[in-house]
Amino acid sequence: MLKELKEQVFEANIALKEHNLVVLTWGNASAINNDRDLIVIKPSGVQYQNMKPSDMVVVNLETGKVVDGQLKPSSDTETHRILYQKFSDVGGIVHTHSRHATIWAQAGKSVNPLGTTHADYFYGAIPCTRLMTKNEIEHNYEFETGKVIIETFNNLNLKPLDMPAALVHSHGPFTWGKNVMQAVDHSIILEEICYMQMFSYMVSPELSNMQTELLNKHYFRKHGANAYYGQK
Amino acid sequence: MLKELKEQVFEANIALKEHNLVVLTWGNASAINNDRDLIVIKPSGVQYQNMKPSDMVVVNLETGKVVDGQLKPSSDTETHRILYQKFSDVGGIVHTHSRHATIWAQAGKSVNPLGTTHADYFYGAIPCTRLMTKNEIEHNYEFETGKVIIETFNNLNLKPLDMPAALVHSHGPFTWGKNVMQAVDHSIILEEICYMQMFSYMVSPELSNMQTELLNKHYFRKHGANAYYGQK
Amino acid sequence: MLKELKEQVFEANIALKEHNLVVLTWGNASAINNDRDLIVIKPSGVQYQNMKPSDMVVVNLETGKVVDGQLKPSSDTETHRILYQKFSDVGGIVHTHSRHATIWAQAGKSVNPLGTTHADYFYGAIPCTRLMTKNEIEHNYEFETGKVIIETFNNLNLKPLDMPAALVHSHGPFTWGKNVMQAVDHSIILEEICYMQMFSYMVSPELSNMQTELLNKHYFRKHGANAYYGQK
Amino acid sequence: MLKELKEQVFEANIALKEHNLVVLTWGNASAINNDRDLIVIKPSGVQYQNMKPSDMVVVNLETGKVVDGQLKPSSDTETHRILYQKFSDVGGIVHTHSRHATIWAQAGKSVNPLGTTHADYFYGAIPCTRLMTKNEIEHNYEFETGKVIIETFNNLNLKPLDMPAALVHSHGPFTWGKNVMQAVDHSIILEEICYMQMFSYMVSPELSNMQTELLNKHYFRKHGANAYYGQK
Repeated sequence: MLKELKEQVFEANIALKEHNLVVLTWGNASAINNDRDLIVIKPSGVQYQNMKPSDMVVVNLETGKVVDGQLKPSSDTETHRILYQKFSDVGGIVHTHSRHATIWAQAGKSVNPLGTTHADYFYGAIPCTRLMTKNEIEHNYEFETGKVIIETFNNLNLKPLDMPAALVHSHGPFTWGKNVMQAVDHSIILEEICYMQMFSYMVSPELSNMQTELLNKHYFRKHGANAYYGQK
Repeated sequence: MLKELKEQVFEANIALKEHNLVVLTWGNASAINNDRDLIVIKPSGVQYQNMKPSDMVVVNLETGKVVDGQLKPSSDTETHRILYQKFSDVGGIVHTHSRHATIWAQAGKSVNPLGTTHADYFYGAIPCTRLMTKNEIEHNYEFETGKVIIETFNNLNLKPLDMPAALVHSHGPFTWGKNVMQAVDHSIILEEICYMQMFSYMVSPELSNMQTELLNKHYFRKHGANAYYGQK
Repeated sequence: MLKELKEQVFEANIALKEHNLVVLTWGNASAINNDRDLIVIKPSGVQYQNMKPSDMVVVNLETGKVVDGQLKPSSDTETHRILYQKFSDVGGIVHTHSRHATIWAQAGKSVNPLGTTHADYFYGAIPCTRLMTKNEIEHNYEFETGKVIIETFNNLNLKPLDMPAALVHSHGPFTWGKNVMQAVDHSIILEEICYMQMFSYMVSPELSNMQTELLNKHYFRKHGANAYYGQK
Repeated sequence: MLKELKEQVFEANIALKEHNLVVLTWGNASAINNDRDLIVIKPSGVQYQNMKPSDMVVVNLETGKVVDGQLKPSSDTETHRILYQKFSDVGGIVHTHSRHATIWAQAGKSVNPLGTTHADYFYGAIPCTRLMTKNEIEHNYEFETGKVIIETFNNLNLKPLDMPAALVHSHGPFTWGKNVMQAVDHSIILEEICYMQMFSYMVSPELSNMQTELLNKHYFRKHGANAYYGQK
């Protein structure tokens, strides 16, 4: 069942390890099928070195029930599920506790655009959610984690593919993309940006955001109808 | 004698090297047998690349005497010994001078919980001991090092398996677990957390601790009767 | 066409990856032929692991048109082109978003000489350009990026081979050299210096520049008629 | 000539590269023979990957003249030479521009003892030299570099084997030991300590030095007549 997608999700999870974005069994990557009714996701708490493509778990988007696989899905599955329901152009999702993105999440701060590295991939400040309420934490926590991301995007009027990352307050980053490998790329890039932004403020504490025209130039050089980066 | 446990302790020491938690001959890992009367520990000052499982030294818990092995045990053996005596559910112990845990130990500060990475493994602030007295330093130093950890845990009413790490003031971290590989994992995780906490305060100097309900949620998601992380 | 130069430019691009100066498809290296009428440059947005020497693109210096190669050249080709036109003793150019050089570029600050590591390669402060105007950003952006570097060098009366690097404000570093491998070396060294300078100011916020006589000593120990470093 | 010592010096230089203490052709290691009349040192500006044991250069201690070898010796040979002349129990010397030791050298600050990692190897603050005078820089610079280290040691009444490192102001670290491999170890350890000290002050800006009794305990646990660390 969904053999090719399991392979992709497996490769994406391995890539998180290879890019030093996860330690031990942390992190998880998932993808949704073309019919958008089934999610393929990493099993919970399995050692990366022992993991096989066939260990990936298939979950029904609507019910959250496992429909294929011997193992329990990631404990964060409910977060992925609601994100796929609401972000209808997203094909893959990644969650890590990568060091520098987590630092910004712990600080509870959005990551402002300070340079073209940021502008090449994220169209504006990368948002950090509000604190979750006691009730949200204690009931359906993982589902509510997804909901607070969606609330943040609604409040700021952000489009998921123009802003393929969010920081969950006191927790860490989620990223996404058209497919799961693009979601992995966005985790890699988010980590670079969070590192550089942290120290840019150390070098220059009163630093302003980059010029809007430079943000536009770099974002649209890579994205949309007039993009001219890459081989297309 | 204790061939399997020697193998485990050897693998644990090698893992410290592979995870860049030790340089040169620094660091040491140990385990206690099921009867809780014998400790297996790394020899003192031996190069990691030359070390073999059979070099591990067996020490009597009660007397501290070597009962098997050609080499001298780690100079920190007395610290391990008293910890096993007092922390009766601990099966393995690790000591390193890993960079970021040592930074917090040198600063003489406990590591407050700022996010879910911390809450997944450590139930509250990771304590730093008081300074040791002149007398403690000059007489039975290594044994007293263990005693000051235990004093800290008694004062704060901490349970060793809910708080599997301590920082010794002006020195560095000790971690432990149900077995020696879990003790290694806790050293890896402690290092991640100490890195992230250090820079979280740089990004936001007035940062508060995470919400207690979020700390509880994440800790008990992974630990205790109602845990639902992993494959059990 | 230009087979040997394509090989050199390919090796230079691979070296950027191996020295962790680029992630994903970022970064680009180029060289100019001896007749100084043709540039060989990395294709745009191609994965490093799939890249071959024959993928390098040949561009006419005067017209900017591709004269050999199946792929589109780097989107930064116009920046390289104007630098070759104005910096007539430069044989190779590299652009990266390496972490610490980019931090200084995002902070919009020149990198002052604080020690002999700097003085061995860069004869004075490594300049950061002014912000580009809205008009420059929106029309011929990449060409204007090169122009603002040249303007900076003219204003400061800098010679390209005595100052083989510039930071473009809110963007990142460009480096160059007599040939493309020297341009790579300068990217490696720039990254070291930007790291060390950042933290030198953390350790000593009021730090002065190094002594002019020490800067002269180290620079001319390695460069010019009386150099005595190395095997010549 | 001195085949075995050349092999040792070669291995030491390679170890600097493997421990990421040097980039490109930077850094140099040397040793002196048992008769203390000949120094074996790395050649100047040679690529590490091409270097062979037979490339090591033999220099007369008294005259500074090359007595064996095809290549020019390190440009820092004169610094090594005077250190061997004055530090009569030193058998090997290393110079690097390792990142964190260089940061402290650039800041012009001694590195205070803040924890046991430091105390295990360095008996007190690791000194930074004064600025060199214009005259010292312009005449016999490398020889004068060694002299300013010796002056620092004389002023502070330091013994070279109890304090096997010095920072040269605005430049970088020199380390030494009973033999060249111990000098390499001291470079590795110095780098660890300089990293940890830098951030210990960030975490706790008003941090005091460690207790003298703890410094004594750890230093003499490893060194001198009553040492009990290791296998002797």
